[in-house]
Amino acid sequence: MFQDFKLVGDRPVAIQVKEYVKRLIIKGALQADQKLPSTREMSSLLKVSRNTVIAAYEGLEDDGFTYTIPGKGSYVTAMVGHLAADNEGTAWQIDWKARMNEYAISAVELDMMKQGIRAEKGTISFTSIAPDEQLFDMGDVRRAFMDRMAIEGQVLLNYGYAKGYKPLIDYLMRYMENKGVDLSGKDMVITNGFTEGFDIVLSALRPSTRRGAAICENPTHHTAIKNLKLQGFEITGIPMRNDGMDVEQLEAVLHKQNSFDLAYLTPSYHNPTGIVMSPAKRSAVMKLLMHYQIPVIEDGFNEELRYSGAHVAPLIATVGQGNGVIYIGSFSKVLFPGLRVGWVLGDKALIDNLESMKRARTIHTSTIDQSILYQYLLNGNFDKYVKKARMEYKRKYELTKACCEAHLPEAQLSGDGGLHLFLTFPSEVNTRQLLEACIEQGVIFTPGDKFFIQEGTGTNTLRLGFSRVTDENIVRGIQIIGKQARRFLET
Amino acid sequence: MFQDFKLVGDRPVAIQVKEYVKRLIIKGALQADQKLPSTREMSSLLKVSRNTVIAAYEGLEDDGFTYTIPGKGSYVTAMVGHLAADNEGTAWQIDWKARMNEYAISAVELDMMKQGIRAEKGTISFTSIAPDEQLFDMGDVRRAFMDRMAIEGQVLLNYGYAKGYKPLIDYLMRYMENKGVDLSGKDMVITNGFTEGFDIVLSALRPSTRRGAAICENPTHHTAIKNLKLQGFEITGIPMRNDGMDVEQLEAVLHKQNSFDLAYLTPSYHNPTGIVMSPAKRSAVMKLLMHYQIPVIEDGFNEELRYSGAHVAPLIATVGQGNGVIYIGSFSKVLFPGLRVGWVLGDKALIDNLESMKRARTIHTSTIDQSILYQYLLNGNFDKYVKKARMEYKRKYELTKACCEAHLPEAQLSGDGGLHLFLTFPSEVNTRQLLEACIEQGVIFTPGDKFFIQEGTGTNTLRLGFSRVTDENIVRGIQIIGKQARRFLET
Repeated sequence: MFQDFKLVGDRPVAIQVKEYVKRLIIKGALQADQKLPSTREMSSLLKVSRNTVIAAYEGLEDDGFTYTIPGKGSYVTAMVGHLAADNEGTAWQIDWKARMNEYAISAVELDMMKQGIRAEKGTISFTSIAPDEQLFDMGDVRRAFMDRMAIEGQVLLNYGYAKGYKPLIDYLMRYMENKGVDLSGKDMVITNGFTEGFDIVLSALRPSTRRGAAICENPTHHTAIKNLKLQGFEITGIPMRNDGMDVEQLEAVLHKQNSFDLAYLTPSYHNPTGIVMSPAKRSAVMKLLMHYQIPVIEDGFNEELRYSGAHVAPLIATVGQGNGVIYIGSFSKVLFPGLRVGWVLGDKALIDNLESMKRARTIHTSTIDQSILYQYLLNGNFDKYVKKARMEYKRKYELTKACCEAHLPEAQLSGDGGLHLFLTFPSEVNTRQLLEACIEQGVIFTPGDKFFIQEGTGTNTLRLGFSRVTDENIVRGIQIIGKQARRFLET
Repeated sequence: MFQDFKLVGDRPVAIQVKEYVKRLIIKGALQADQKLPSTREMSSLLKVSRNTVIAAYEGLEDDGFTYTIPGKGSYVTAMVGHLAADNEGTAWQIDWKARMNEYAISAVELDMMKQGIRAEKGTISFTSIAPDEQLFDMGDVRRAFMDRMAIEGQVLLNYGYAKGYKPLIDYLMRYMENKGVDLSGKDMVITNGFTEGFDIVLSALRPSTRRGAAICENPTHHTAIKNLKLQGFEITGIPMRNDGMDVEQLEAVLHKQNSFDLAYLTPSYHNPTGIVMSPAKRSAVMKLLMHYQIPVIEDGFNEELRYSGAHVAPLIATVGQGNGVIYIGSFSKVLFPGLRVGWVLGDKALIDNLESMKRARTIHTSTIDQSILYQYLLNGNFDKYVKKARMEYKRKYELTKACCEAHLPEAQLSGDGGLHLFLTFPSEVNTRQLLEACIEQGVIFTPGDKFFIQEGTGTNTLRLGFSRVTDENIVRGIQIIGKQARRFLET
């Protein structure tokens, strides 16, 4: 015994010894009331210092794995609770798949990541629309963490509030006010990114007695489609034009059925089309939804990644003191996705409900994440970063656009900003088949059909995310897509 | 104009100027195509350097709030999307309360924090069972953050995996193995603390077609009761004896109705009673639940805060390769609640479903939190901290116990560890009334009835959390409770 002890480099040795002996006890290699080798013996057996063994033995006793008989040594305690092991216990097999309900099963079926395309090493991948981490200024993040720790210290590590970290809420309320939002009668709850905010809002608005009904742009963000379906909503998609959703269609739909529970809209840098809804459409759409009293869930997606043109106010800014719009914001798309921080801004009474739901689900969002983000914003690092990121992404955006125009002239382009472009090919081009062909050439992208409400539509579209692709690969990748696309166009 | 500009100390001045001008534009004080004062004028008007104004003006143009006419100056852009404001928009009022579904309404009704007792300053409060942040070693936390940042850098801030941060998962799998768990056929998903793990598991096991049925100890953790109710489960409580739940009762209940969807158990340092289930009961309970094929959700609550006696293995360790137990762990109770990190350990197939549900709800748990916790554990800080915390809490535990025995002899005490004691008075003592009396004397505690399944039971019980109360206040507070209790006992 004790031959198989191996030291790993990066952990305190006493702890490694303690855990090694624990495992021997757990496995039954050391029996109850068996005497452990003396600290001197053990230190020569394991080739570690005797003080290390002494510390390890203390730890074992602290953890209740051994007891000491003064003058005699350390003995293994009779382990509690291993009775059933390796007998009846083993027999206990539950068929979990059979016990999963519809929600759990759909969650897997609708889980894009599990149907995702596996890219081999060296593949040029246009599938990601996550920010390029090379742009992250780690020095500023470290400083933000250290500054906040120095100011608040230990309280940052104890329980926080479900509503969110107060200084961050105050900052973001001001931030939204600077986008033109009238804050009177409104309040905010911090969530784990956009996704939790959206999921909680849907959970609150889902009708108890019947299936829910939602309107959204078609195509739209696939995570939104997934969560709407998971929450049991029937989705009615309104086709996109190059200046936003088709208002005539919206009017027709509302005229036919006015019992929608909500509308989900992404007015700026819409995902996947990248379209910014025109001022005229914004007011037309809002007037209609107002008339039919259909609450709007506004996705603030990528609002910060404006490359040209005037500042565009969010929809929630257009209703003044009205409370019909719920705005869900997040910096994840432009800033740090790893910090899971988003916010829901809306009517006070509504936020009060959402706060309790948030508490019931995750108690509160990481205070470390919230306080780092707050300090980072306060220090003015965000403005500095966005300036840098905009320049870099704008350059890549224009390069990608130019390459598409050169090598994919048949495809109709859309995208006024953000980290991706959306392409619509003539109907004979099936982008799933195109993808198959491109994979063989070492290039992948996101087929557009997954953004469409009805299965089997949008089969001639694709999304090109350029944020994490090098210039060379943007050029090469789009050349390859073009070459492959041509084959489909000729046939 | 420009008279009301006020500098705050802790932000870059250029950003403060930029935001000040933005607000003037948003409010309409500066109109479209109006010329801004020259940078020289503005610098004297706002009493800031001219370079600051130049930087602020650049920022305004970057953000699309102004445009420059070379040689002439900066002009306000026509704001997009303010059309509806202060007209129809204002008229749009939605009655959100009326639109909330049962789930959202219950979430508020069952939200303890919103019915919580407000303690005035100077009150001696026994309501908290959160750790005492004074024990947190901030140096080690800072080091863990810096170490991890140095090793992984920017990737920590980009998207992570729904399943969790791989190094942390590997560490925790090993950690659970050291508690005697047979890992074969099992897997793990990281969640935002215990609460998200529990909520996701319930969402997966809730029957689609009928109400769910759950068994648990009575009393039990009130958050668990809340989430079970919110997920539509009927709860059957099994009374607690001083060595764990009443097995005869459990047997009787199961004999009568064997269609339970799950059992929720806290075998060690049970909340609120603090009882550790005896070895005999553990095997008896497990044999019964195995026989009726009722899955167990095990709450690893406070397992680390053992003050005496032998190491107690979790229930999941007692079933060997069996897959009938889902273990939910968290360090929040003993370590840092502010880091929202917990884990669900169970059958591979089950975890695969939970992973997709986790992704649909919050994408993934904060990578910063996970990586700080991982490095902190790896550095051996946790063992060091628990040793220190155990000593301190054990001392307070014994002091609290001694005070209760001295001043509350009529109350039956329970609690073998953890951060609180549970008291059961003779039936004539109503602890809500007792609380009323104590509040006037500046002492508060948690009435025990909220931990019981049926309303109006456990009215003679209370929970005393001592982790954040000073020694002096423990003594004084319990004296006061004793004095007040006596009045109820005499009448």
